[in-house]
Amino acid sequence: VIWTAARRLIGGGATLRPKTSLSGRHVLITAGPTHEPIDPVRYIANRSSGKQGFAIAEAAAEAGARVTLVAGPVNLPTPAGVERVDVESARDMERAVAAALPADVAIMVAAVADWRARDVADQKVKKDGGDPAPLPLTTNPDILAGLAQSDKRPKLVIGFAAETENIVPHAQAKRLRKGADWIVANDVSGDVMGGAMNTVHLVHAGGVENWEPMAKRDVAARLVERIMDEFPD
Amino acid sequence: VIWTAARRLIGGGATLRPKTSLSGRHVLITAGPTHEPIDPVRYIANRSSGKQGFAIAEAAAEAGARVTLVAGPVNLPTPAGVERVDVESARDMERAVAAALPADVAIMVAAVADWRARDVADQKVKKDGGDPAPLPLTTNPDILAGLAQSDKRPKLVIGFAAETENIVPHAQAKRLRKGADWIVANDVSGDVMGGAMNTVHLVHAGGVENWEPMAKRDVAARLVERIMDEFPD
Repeated sequence: VIWTAARRLIGGGATLRPKTSLSGRHVLITAGPTHEPIDPVRYIANRSSGKQGFAIAEAAAEAGARVTLVAGPVNLPTPAGVERVDVESARDMERAVAAALPADVAIMVAAVADWRARDVADQKVKKDGGDPAPLPLTTNPDILAGLAQSDKRPKLVIGFAAETENIVPHAQAKRLRKGADWIVANDVSGDVMGGAMNTVHLVHAGGVENWEPMAKRDVAARLVERIMDEFPD
Repeated sequence: VIWTAARRLIGGGATLRPKTSLSGRHVLITAGPTHEPIDPVRYIANRSSGKQGFAIAEAAAEAGARVTLVAGPVNLPTPAGVERVDVESARDMERAVAAALPADVAIMVAAVADWRARDVADQKVKKDGGDPAPLPLTTNPDILAGLAQSDKRPKLVIGFAAETENIVPHAQAKRLRKGADWIVANDVSGDVMGGAMNTVHLVHAGGVENWEPMAKRDVAARLVERIMDEFPD
């Protein structure tokens, strides 16, 4: 509200913005893993440091965007000028994403757990000696697909894919299946989760851009540049 | 080896130690959670910040002990004078504990996952649309019980128990079942995992000591004092 009011006060000043700025745009980013409770002490999680999403949030804020960063459980400082919403589970994240709309761009970087425990125990599940029963699972909401099909769909919906094999075909299939505009496919076959360097392929309707291996902050800067191309103003 | 040699050089100097010091004692501590892989990106974990175990390691080192700290995945600095061994899974932790023996005191603070996935996939398990199959689990090694039954059993074997109900009876049963000397039972019904304050009951053959709620560092100091009582020299 304050933002909108400020923009209204500035009025025609928008024409003074550099052509490649994201000023006046709302960029919604998810980052980190989700934790899906089994009982009060146990959970299922994805490996994700959150570094890539946080780096993108920082780069988008530096490019002038209003940035909402919905973060799973990570141990990272909030980038300057970024509004951060901390969540734990996929369902928490889904709610926080919906609450942050409308947005011009959504960049879903979080490694959302595909499944959660079907039943969450109120008390710690005790060992009883024998081998434990298989853990019943159920499917988590698909936040990316839900957003892409939403009546508040951002103009540019970007998903991330961490893949260990057949990187680009998996990403192309994911793009179509989810209804996303772009998929940033991250080759994690070398176990770079939590590491500093990413090997990334940007998959969109026009084809595939194979980016050279680079630091997460450079992936962030490159991605934000590519986003600015889509918003020439 | 260096330590032993140093002690030999000091020789009779041992009598100069204050009566309540742990100088010359080897204290083995585990801390943090374990992460049990499901596939390259997913894992099962316990909630544990590692703060309590790290605080005990720090207090034991300050009391003059040689301290080996076997740490699961946590985001904490190594206390001064502590030898740290980082591990991920329960089986890693079991090996690291065995490798650190002999020890005079073992304090098993880690929230070791009771189970792991029976089968660990080499590639990321893909969603296939329908509800996922239940996840087959298997039981992890019991590091505390194994240590208590070991032919290298430390003189004082201390386990931790995070409980949400029937705290003391559960801890008393655990003490006998595991063959531990002491159980430090931590009441986590108020969801203090990762928080600063602990409500602790020290359960041993002589009965139960109910400690007032206190900060983790004070639990650590109190526990190290109680350990020193067992090593009057």
